[in-house]
Amino acid sequence: MKYQNLDQAQSFKDLNKTTPVNIKEELTEERVKKYEIETGSSIKFNYAALPVNDIILKRLVGLGTEQALVEKFRLILSGETMNPGEGRKVLHHLTRMDPLTPVIFENNNIRNFYMEQQERINIFAGKIHSGQIKGSTDKKFDTVIQIGIGGSDLGPRAMYIALKEAVGKKAMMTADFISNVDPDDAASVLVKVNLESTLFILVSKSGTTQETLANRDLAIKWMKNKNPNLIPEKHMIAVTSATSPLANSDSFLDSFYIDDFIGGRYSSTSAVGGAVLTLAFGKEVFREFLEGAASSDKNALNKNINENAALMDALIGCYMRNILDYRVSAVLPYSQGMSRFPAHLQQLDMESNGKSVNRHGDSLDYQTGPVIFGEPGTNGQHSFYQLLHQGTDIIPLQFIGFKESQQDVDLEIDGTTNQTKLNANLTAQIIAFAKGSPNPDSNKNFNGSRPSSLLYGERLTPETLGALLSHFENKVMFQGFVWNINSFDQEGVQLGKKLTNQILSGESNDKALNLIAGKLGI
Amino acid sequence: MKYQNLDQAQSFKDLNKTTPVNIKEELTEERVKKYEIETGSSIKFNYAALPVNDIILKRLVGLGTEQALVEKFRLILSGETMNPGEGRKVLHHLTRMDPLTPVIFENNNIRNFYMEQQERINIFAGKIHSGQIKGSTDKKFDTVIQIGIGGSDLGPRAMYIALKEAVGKKAMMTADFISNVDPDDAASVLVKVNLESTLFILVSKSGTTQETLANRDLAIKWMKNKNPNLIPEKHMIAVTSATSPLANSDSFLDSFYIDDFIGGRYSSTSAVGGAVLTLAFGKEVFREFLEGAASSDKNALNKNINENAALMDALIGCYMRNILDYRVSAVLPYSQGMSRFPAHLQQLDMESNGKSVNRHGDSLDYQTGPVIFGEPGTNGQHSFYQLLHQGTDIIPLQFIGFKESQQDVDLEIDGTTNQTKLNANLTAQIIAFAKGSPNPDSNKNFNGSRPSSLLYGERLTPETLGALLSHFENKVMFQGFVWNINSFDQEGVQLGKKLTNQILSGESNDKALNLIAGKLGI
Repeated sequence: MKYQNLDQAQSFKDLNKTTPVNIKEELTEERVKKYEIETGSSIKFNYAALPVNDIILKRLVGLGTEQALVEKFRLILSGETMNPGEGRKVLHHLTRMDPLTPVIFENNNIRNFYMEQQERINIFAGKIHSGQIKGSTDKKFDTVIQIGIGGSDLGPRAMYIALKEAVGKKAMMTADFISNVDPDDAASVLVKVNLESTLFILVSKSGTTQETLANRDLAIKWMKNKNPNLIPEKHMIAVTSATSPLANSDSFLDSFYIDDFIGGRYSSTSAVGGAVLTLAFGKEVFREFLEGAASSDKNALNKNINENAALMDALIGCYMRNILDYRVSAVLPYSQGMSRFPAHLQQLDMESNGKSVNRHGDSLDYQTGPVIFGEPGTNGQHSFYQLLHQGTDIIPLQFIGFKESQQDVDLEIDGTTNQTKLNANLTAQIIAFAKGSPNPDSNKNFNGSRPSSLLYGERLTPETLGALLSHFENKVMFQGFVWNINSFDQEGVQLGKKLTNQILSGESNDKALNLIAGKLGI
Repeated sequence: MKYQNLDQAQSFKDLNKTTPVNIKEELTEERVKKYEIETGSSIKFNYAALPVNDIILKRLVGLGTEQALVEKFRLILSGETMNPGEGRKVLHHLTRMDPLTPVIFENNNIRNFYMEQQERINIFAGKIHSGQIKGSTDKKFDTVIQIGIGGSDLGPRAMYIALKEAVGKKAMMTADFISNVDPDDAASVLVKVNLESTLFILVSKSGTTQETLANRDLAIKWMKNKNPNLIPEKHMIAVTSATSPLANSDSFLDSFYIDDFIGGRYSSTSAVGGAVLTLAFGKEVFREFLEGAASSDKNALNKNINENAALMDALIGCYMRNILDYRVSAVLPYSQGMSRFPAHLQQLDMESNGKSVNRHGDSLDYQTGPVIFGEPGTNGQHSFYQLLHQGTDIIPLQFIGFKESQQDVDLEIDGTTNQTKLNANLTAQIIAFAKGSPNPDSNKNFNGSRPSSLLYGERLTPETLGALLSHFENKVMFQGFVWNINSFDQEGVQLGKKLTNQILSGESNDKALNLIAGKLGI
């Protein structure tokens, strides 16, 4: 397989010679029709308002071919060691689809291993839901609290919030999350639940995550304080790796396993998301979610780049990053259920592609992953959109929308429902950003030519949510391939951990550090 | 008063000639001691890890003097028309401090007007708390829901979340917020409250905000559906301007007033924040919050820039934006209570300073407000910090920390509490970003020289929260003065509103727009 830096690619050199597109002039009905690809589960990616045209797209397709993007995805799906820094396979797709060839590691078929764990979760959840397993004071469990941080928190939490309204009254349990080592975080969750009917899920792949273990101990202390009859180990399960200190421990009702081939930020479809989402919503909802994810994965395998939504999204993103020098991208879901989806994408994208060396460790001469931020519209419109419309930097936008709301409660006012108003706002923004509006009062002038794309579908369901999740996972993966970086390690978080431990053990002799620590009461 | 563009300032030209600082080499104990200013309420701004030295600081002080920053703040506090685009005064400071000279408008003393409104709120809240005013089915009010969007939502919500844990069991009522026009937002709040004991606050300065009126009608519909005996007008108050269609209406139990001199994003200390926070926490908590804000305002008046924290923060921010070309800034509070503070700052900063023309309407040749984003640490550490440490762009960071947690529930594990662990993480990050750590494995190498500042205090209380809020308001104001822009209008949000109304009334004949609208079910 050919691995080359982006600036070595001939098609990138050609792209540098293309004339940029002024979308203000070009956003026609024809483009809206033509520049659209279906990803998974009927979710469509419309890129009519992105600054490309047929010439640029042709060269981007050339770049995708030259960097062998689909082929590299196929290597992932064949169990190659695609995380070279850590010498690991990258297998999160196998939580929801079959590999291209059986992936065997230490005599284990990994696809089967992931399916077995989910099946074990399904059976366990069934026992919880039926009351066959109860709390230590004989109360039926009605609440589940996930204790985890980073990928063990952001993805599952974003998915839970998105599905909560979709599933509605059919939900089996209420879920909540504790992540931050800040004791205020744990307290604010623990204070509002009935601990007798609460099941905790401790999620840590290594079994040694400091924040997570500290929060577990805090939860146990709360239980003991609240009711001395509570037996904490009867209220806790673990999701961890089979070799971690948490595995097979008497401290848990049960343990479910993941492995080193799934990074935290890619773990929503593994047992990390599977346990909490299955407990909250039942196995059918989680199965639909996995099917949605698999449908986008399948689309991402399409060798025809013009029909491959994640790949097209990735390539245009690289064009905007490396040729147009846009450094930030905003994700703007017009759906309240997706309120924490941008926070998940922030980790997914920035932790995967915020790298300065290529997969061989050589320094890069071009920019990699952008900053990602976002809030749900229309809230964002009343907040930071001012800068997006009239600020001095151009920020490409990624809108997400649905025809229908998740709930059937809506109200017609002045002839339109709130959902119609929401989508009228979304449509208006795409046009306003692209086309602008001239005004002799320069303060009220809109230059336009501000790019955006739209991912849209009928309704936010478990299936469409899965499709969107996997679309972005694959987009980020493809961009990592374009940049020739390793999107699957995160060495950048290690130094902070090391220094933290030095401070806590009193080992640091850096005077500036010690003075700052002193200011913070250490 | 002299108004000139940044690039006309001699001190800016001089700054362009200075040699950038490598903080990796320079972050000494001496700097940590020396580069610190107290803003309000004992909150300290430490800028030891920002890329400045005495030479650069001297020129920044020169820039502050040349752009007459404190003098312009004094004009604000004297009631001058400092929002030229809309021809308005800028008077949010008067919600918490006396002006320099009495500010009279249409025969009204504005400072008195703001204080009178807060006093009316205090009396009203007292009657709600005592049960003198009850719901229409004779239930005592125990819940308050604010319906508002943008500044009527983000600031008050962020403050509510921050104070909830600080006030704890002494809180008088539970508060919640409905903002998005997405019906899923309203439903998710309404479904969980007892409407018989719920008081709604409708917040809209103009009285015509589409999202807010739609959500009001949705709330009224819910009330009627839930219990036909409920009388919606006995469950709702308004915060609006005295001339709005909502003022003095029989549809409300009472109305409290704001005016055009306070922009939404600056309204947390006005009746917009005052009503909900006083109802939730009582008048004493809100008074302390205002006192904290006033204490930072007072510091921002200090003509000695080396003692003026907001001004120093602003100037170094402009240096990083305009000389070092950093386009994004992350706000990272190491306090779970401040989880939505970054979202508020996002509006405050990006809506105020995301402008491309100066206060006279001339196009600018330099960059203005940056993108702002952030999440509470340590969550962020496990998410996007990878890019902050090893990405190809430098992102300046603004850390916020407190010696003590808001709650007294904590637990010692391995000899340290969670709060100590939290602050050890914060300290470690500052050092890791600044100093880095060389490693022969380039994948594990940290270059350092990544700048950060630290705002810190004893504990997150109503007073310190107020001080932090006002510090940032004043920082943003000073940066607007440096850039010679009008930080107090938001014309950039108008075009979207106009197009939305065209779509809803079926008036648009833009074919691309209509096709997109059709895709979204309109």
